[in-house]
Amino acid sequence: MTNKQDTRQRILDTASSMFHTQSYNAVGVAAICNKADVSKGSFFHFFKSKQDLALAVMDHFQLFINQQLISKAFSSSIKPLQRFDDFVFALYNFQNTQTEQNGHMPGCPFGNMAMEQATQDEVLRKKAESCLNGLGNQFLQTITEAMECGVLPDIDAKATADAMLSYIEGVQLLAKTRNDPELILKLGPVMKSIKIERTG
Amino acid sequence: MTNKQDTRQRILDTASSMFHTQSYNAVGVAAICNKADVSKGSFFHFFKSKQDLALAVMDHFQLFINQQLISKAFSSSIKPLQRFDDFVFALYNFQNTQTEQNGHMPGCPFGNMAMEQATQDEVLRKKAESCLNGLGNQFLQTITEAMECGVLPDIDAKATADAMLSYIEGVQLLAKTRNDPELILKLGPVMKSIKIERTG
Repeated sequence: MTNKQDTRQRILDTASSMFHTQSYNAVGVAAICNKADVSKGSFFHFFKSKQDLALAVMDHFQLFINQQLISKAFSSSIKPLQRFDDFVFALYNFQNTQTEQNGHMPGCPFGNMAMEQATQDEVLRKKAESCLNGLGNQFLQTITEAMECGVLPDIDAKATADAMLSYIEGVQLLAKTRNDPELILKLGPVMKSIKIERTG
Repeated sequence: MTNKQDTRQRILDTASSMFHTQSYNAVGVAAICNKADVSKGSFFHFFKSKQDLALAVMDHFQLFINQQLISKAFSSSIKPLQRFDDFVFALYNFQNTQTEQNGHMPGCPFGNMAMEQATQDEVLRKKAESCLNGLGNQFLQTITEAMECGVLPDIDAKATADAMLSYIEGVQLLAKTRNDPELILKLGPVMKSIKIERTG
């Protein structure tokens, strides 16, 4: 049982790293099996397809991001708007470490998948959407709390959360394009000042 | 001569559409030749590699975006901050038309290329960076003009242009992920309110 779980986890860790540092389409099942040192038979015992693996990879990143970036930054013991700064700093550290290890800033795994696959694979598009919405919901909860304690005025909290999510994804996109994680530190903190007014 | 130019242009138009509606890696030279109805020999007469073609495709999109989106929106006859609203509206129209034609919102061709290829192909990363910087320079010029006429305070114009570029790329990323171009109309106009203060 433990051995089987180890094998599945090894495939998942290998694929997560390969998709993130290359792209979904650039990495085939054979290359994953080769790097993870498992047979194709073993691979298809755990994952019925590469798409199935990609769904598990996005779950894996969501868990990682929740544990390493979200849970610390968005602690209720920290003042609402400060949480966004802490999140930006944690995101910078993650992307900067990855850049030092691989030579290239990999960007957001959900944003990468969406930009590559959203027009081609509806299952992967919906999964990336769901993962990004998870992050947006965390922003929404924090904006709502900031409004309740008067730190933010009465704005459209849902649209503002989407705007902040867009911004931080766009900052990662530009930083990846320039291969410069420092851009996250420079541009990121302004995310907490973005506001969308209520309409009607 | 005209015939040769027609053939090159047909390859370019076909590849631009295929890369945009699918992805760079998903589309092979054979598929492009097949759809453009040209031989591989003819293809390699005009483009020495698929990477070479991708550079020409990004030039093609830059020309299109300059002519169709930038030149009208960023006219000096329009008040500086209004230009950003006009740009957002033109961008929405472009992405919405593409979505109606193809069923999927394709997003920014430079952002797509960067998110897919930046970690893998340094030539394509630098080209995508240069195309995005072209857009950023247009924003910078407009911000500088708005500061000169007192519509914007004395801010860090270069960092603010980067922040606006990040935001509008992120809005397209989220709209593509949700396959919902309306998000550009809803979130886009707030780009003109983003400001980064001078430091030091």
